[in-house]
Amino acid sequence: MDYRKAPDGRVNIRLDAGDELIASLLEICGKERIGNAMFWGIGACMKADIGHYDPEKKEYHNKVLEGKMEIISLTGNVTMADDAPLIHAHIALGLQDFSMQGGHVNMVEVDPTCEVVLMPIEGKVQRELDEKTGLKAQRF
Amino acid sequence: MDYRKAPDGRVNIRLDAGDELIASLLEICGKERIGNAMFWGIGACMKADIGHYDPEKKEYHNKVLEGKMEIISLTGNVTMADDAPLIHAHIALGLQDFSMQGGHVNMVEVDPTCEVVLMPIEGKVQRELDEKTGLKAQRF
Amino acid sequence: MDYRKAPDGRVNIRLDAGDELIASLLEICGKERIGNAMFWGIGACMKADIGHYDPEKKEYHNKVLEGKMEIISLTGNVTMADDAPLIHAHIALGLQDFSMQGGHVNMVEVDPTCEVVLMPIEGKVQRELDEKTGLKAQRF
Repeated sequence: MDYRKAPDGRVNIRLDAGDELIASLLEICGKERIGNAMFWGIGACMKADIGHYDPEKKEYHNKVLEGKMEIISLTGNVTMADDAPLIHAHIALGLQDFSMQGGHVNMVEVDPTCEVVLMPIEGKVQRELDEKTGLKAQRF
Repeated sequence: MDYRKAPDGRVNIRLDAGDELIASLLEICGKERIGNAMFWGIGACMKADIGHYDPEKKEYHNKVLEGKMEIISLTGNVTMADDAPLIHAHIALGLQDFSMQGGHVNMVEVDPTCEVVLMPIEGKVQRELDEKTGLKAQRF
Repeated sequence: MDYRKAPDGRVNIRLDAGDELIASLLEICGKERIGNAMFWGIGACMKADIGHYDPEKKEYHNKVLEGKMEIISLTGNVTMADDAPLIHAHIALGLQDFSMQGGHVNMVEVDPTCEVVLMPIEGKVQRELDEKTGLKAQRF
């Protein structure tokens, strides 16, 4: 992994083979003290754990995909929960037959690369547990 | 629905269960006088009316999807048509079996939440009807 | 094709029927001397050549799709390679039955329109061949 923060605050990020997406982004957000941002990425991976939220059970049902996959779109945000940055991202994966599968990102092992741009937004957005949905909701 | 406009002009938006996506974004753009912007979102919904444009018939053919769906990517822009903000958005939906369907957004009922970031662009972009395509085209 | 660069540097782009996506974006980046940027687009096309990278063979295996397709998401970046702008983009296409296919963009023939917003990032990002992956990697 390597990254560069431009004078305008935007961050170019290159993830390399073996880098885990969420952990890598959390590391950068911690170092750069980013508490509100949007990010986007394209690349490829060999393993992805993705989920769909079940609002009745208040839990995710998950699926692990393995094999060569393109990251067709990675779309996510950075906010704060319990005084630490939290990454919320959704991913669209391109399978070998060019079909697509997608979901909420639990974990993605990048391979061979993923290029991310992160755009900070001024201020910090806090999340708090919303009892009704079971999710940590953005509070303004 | 709730939102916050940061000093840098970017807008964090949280849509809640029952909020219709296009109407909610139009309300914010009207209040904040936004006439040129890009936005992105992730979340989930229970109902979506999506379309594909048929350039020969100059009309959309539409499909209504119902059930728990993840919003894998929401990508759209704000411009002006007939002196009012116009939202143009495309959505990629994640179905229960992790497959995906997508199209032009006619209507999306958010459930339980959708997180959107809107990035204004200086100036306003006007749209005018393009007789050849039947679409309101951006004019610069 | 037409475009407008706002005072804040962001670029609204309208591609028209027959415009090839990569060539059009390269032309704009060359004229506007953009060497680091993120861009996003939505629209439609009649032909797309997309690929998946095979890290073992160090080559893309490609597929040409033809027919009316929605561009559900176009996500890409601009960097520099060998002193010229390079476009790296991934696309999610919506087929007539509302299913989706996606990959790395080799070529997309827009029809009838595609709306792109490009957000420059300060400075230029250079790419250099990474022998291990066979890809031109971003260097910071």
